[in-house]
Amino acid sequence: MERLRNLLSASELSREQIRFLLSTAVKMAPQVRDGDTIPLLQGKTIVNLFFENSTRTRTSFELATRKLGAGTLNFAASTSSTSKGETLIDTAKNIEAMRPHAIVVRHASAGSPQTLAGSIGVPVINAGDGFHEHPTQGLLDVFTIEEKLGSVEGKRVVILGDIAHSRVARSNIHILRKLGASVAVCAPPTLLPPHPETLGVDFAYRPESLLGDADVVMALRIQLERQNRMQIPSIAEYSKFWGLNQERAKLLKKGAIILHPGPINRGVELDPEVADGPHSVILDQVFNGVIIRMAVLAAICAPDALQSWLQKGSNS
Amino acid sequence: MERLRNLLSASELSREQIRFLLSTAVKMAPQVRDGDTIPLLQGKTIVNLFFENSTRTRTSFELATRKLGAGTLNFAASTSSTSKGETLIDTAKNIEAMRPHAIVVRHASAGSPQTLAGSIGVPVINAGDGFHEHPTQGLLDVFTIEEKLGSVEGKRVVILGDIAHSRVARSNIHILRKLGASVAVCAPPTLLPPHPETLGVDFAYRPESLLGDADVVMALRIQLERQNRMQIPSIAEYSKFWGLNQERAKLLKKGAIILHPGPINRGVELDPEVADGPHSVILDQVFNGVIIRMAVLAAICAPDALQSWLQKGSNS
Amino acid sequence: MERLRNLLSASELSREQIRFLLSTAVKMAPQVRDGDTIPLLQGKTIVNLFFENSTRTRTSFELATRKLGAGTLNFAASTSSTSKGETLIDTAKNIEAMRPHAIVVRHASAGSPQTLAGSIGVPVINAGDGFHEHPTQGLLDVFTIEEKLGSVEGKRVVILGDIAHSRVARSNIHILRKLGASVAVCAPPTLLPPHPETLGVDFAYRPESLLGDADVVMALRIQLERQNRMQIPSIAEYSKFWGLNQERAKLLKKGAIILHPGPINRGVELDPEVADGPHSVILDQVFNGVIIRMAVLAAICAPDALQSWLQKGSNS
Repeated sequence: MERLRNLLSASELSREQIRFLLSTAVKMAPQVRDGDTIPLLQGKTIVNLFFENSTRTRTSFELATRKLGAGTLNFAASTSSTSKGETLIDTAKNIEAMRPHAIVVRHASAGSPQTLAGSIGVPVINAGDGFHEHPTQGLLDVFTIEEKLGSVEGKRVVILGDIAHSRVARSNIHILRKLGASVAVCAPPTLLPPHPETLGVDFAYRPESLLGDADVVMALRIQLERQNRMQIPSIAEYSKFWGLNQERAKLLKKGAIILHPGPINRGVELDPEVADGPHSVILDQVFNGVIIRMAVLAAICAPDALQSWLQKGSNS
Repeated sequence: MERLRNLLSASELSREQIRFLLSTAVKMAPQVRDGDTIPLLQGKTIVNLFFENSTRTRTSFELATRKLGAGTLNFAASTSSTSKGETLIDTAKNIEAMRPHAIVVRHASAGSPQTLAGSIGVPVINAGDGFHEHPTQGLLDVFTIEEKLGSVEGKRVVILGDIAHSRVARSNIHILRKLGASVAVCAPPTLLPPHPETLGVDFAYRPESLLGDADVVMALRIQLERQNRMQIPSIAEYSKFWGLNQERAKLLKKGAIILHPGPINRGVELDPEVADGPHSVILDQVFNGVIIRMAVLAAICAPDALQSWLQKGSNS
Repeated sequence: MERLRNLLSASELSREQIRFLLSTAVKMAPQVRDGDTIPLLQGKTIVNLFFENSTRTRTSFELATRKLGAGTLNFAASTSSTSKGETLIDTAKNIEAMRPHAIVVRHASAGSPQTLAGSIGVPVINAGDGFHEHPTQGLLDVFTIEEKLGSVEGKRVVILGDIAHSRVARSNIHILRKLGASVAVCAPPTLLPPHPETLGVDFAYRPESLLGDADVVMALRIQLERQNRMQIPSIAEYSKFWGLNQERAKLLKKGAIILHPGPINRGVELDPEVADGPHSVILDQVFNGVIIRMAVLAAICAPDALQSWLQKGSNS
């Protein structure tokens, strides 16, 4: 398996790399659940370079960093030199010069993590780049599916929502397909990409035909601010025809699970009863996000220490 | 004594619990004063979930956390998912899912810490909820009184200022009465609650009659922004009739002490000469805030480790 | 040598103190470059009290603090009590009461670090005060010069840019002169102080006459917001006549080096080809900033531990 130097996209991860990260996370989970740390990055510093707000993802990386014994340096874009006219590359080169052990970056421009990784010697981890990818979200979603349902191979996964603009959907599709899942996407026509079949997935405009066969339904967050751009007639209409309400949830198989990347717009893409109901594994996703990010950080920043720890049977 | 699982209000603390927290703080103080840490929470994570700005209280909790060997995760409301329409409970459940060891919450709504504690399994510590309570402030004030004057039992405490809207006053009154102090409150009629006698305290509209007997005067902060709501005619008038100036300070007994929760509006509720004068113990309160919060965090998050440490005579 | 209790300005540093800080940094550099920590401040807390935004300097201090085993408490002015009307001294006295081990302060008012140091017992480190001084920047610049060129004594240093309003220039001039460098400054007349010769430096209005003899060119950042105040006709004109472009860089000696305190306005004070060219040591400055701040923090907060570490030949 090729060693992971950065995590820029799910599309460039090999099946082996995905399996390695998932199995590492499986081994880390019990200790973290017990409140223990796994100090593979003791004394190291991870920079969070977030050009878009994201309490959830930033916090998850910060906790993962801390659970590995390292520290986070938050580099908020609003207070950073970029507001003084510095370029992204200049900012990154300056951070690189301070010798951190990795940079976790979120940016509105698709491809900016790749640009960074090509310009600096510090490992780069993509925490969301525009409409492109959010690979740790894809990994934590698949980790959650396998935790609940066993192997994702052969499972039917329905992704419901704004597929066209979702980096979460894109990263999930790459990982799910590499692991042998069957994926369908569902959205109003304006929220589907031009040729959805090129993603290697089935698609439908309405959810009813897909829900009965689904092992997993992944509801995406509707960006309420997008409504202004007229891509959907109204939030009420979206909720009525595509929202996962109790009526539609009844179409699901007994053991089917519902995921959502959060934060939920209750009553829009998910009804409260469904979000808090028996199919929902949404809060498991949050915990699993910390674990997956620990696996990614350790694999990138301390591959040898991680290897020893894995061989010791995680009894360190 | 019932174990402390949360700290939601001073009103629900038993006399024994208050005494335990105060005596724990007494034992912790010398080591902290010497710059040492007391690592009872090594490797643990405390979340600061502040929906209102508070550098002072937030910083005090952060330092207390660090002095116990733990780390703080600041979850600023302005950048958090709540601005994306997520509910308080959703936010808290998401934080809970990341397995922190406690959540310190400040919120404009009275009762929100109780709501949180009823919804999640992580201990909740109230760092101020609306006009309701601010229990660690009450504890640190009483700790400071006893540090300076010995037992608070039988002492006369005068609370001066906006009693109606003060969570500081409310928490202090609960603790002071449980420990046997005699409490009087003083404010213009518009800043007294409707029936002050139901608080179990004496009251007066003007301070002069109360100051001569006081062992302790607690001056509250005037919220300058409240003036607009016309509850007091003007800042100048408040200062003239209720401000603790040099003239009024002369009415105090020799050993009487003056407290203020900070930040001070100099020249409004306290004249600079009084704030920096011989009666003032305001900066002691700041240091004691760190100690009391250490006692609270240790009692809630590591009761067994705290018990061992206390039995070792604090020589660890 | 007099022990360093604060770092308020380069002007008050003795030659011996400067040499001690520089040689300490030289000894610390290899371990930090290897990613190691030098835990001389284990368990201590350094407060960053920044009243002006500065991701770069704040981050550099935070990393230096962490590499010494200590923790940073960021006290952002915008969210602090000063916006509630508290004075700077009150804020500082409150921070002092929490017993941190040093306060790193940036403030728009020249002299405010001195005011603080006179009011509180905690060591104060100036991270930039108005147009006055930025002593750690001066130290890191001289450290970088000596790292590249050997002793700065007898070297010719040309400072190019807004000399009148530059705390970076002022701190550098003090240190360079004390160590025996020859300094010239160059700026349009409106950006020179009234009597530049009183600074003990040569000066010229145009750079061409100075560049050929320079061992070091220090280009300062043009504050784009200053243009409105009409002190320079336009950014384009500044760039044309004073910007360090490829044409002007050709005038430099082969081994001459170019410094810039960052963030760079590319195409204004430095052309991109020059900023990234063979003379530039700008990213070395960034790394060296962390080292110098470690030396300053250790010298002030743990002089005895530092002394032992230095005597052990830095093999701890």
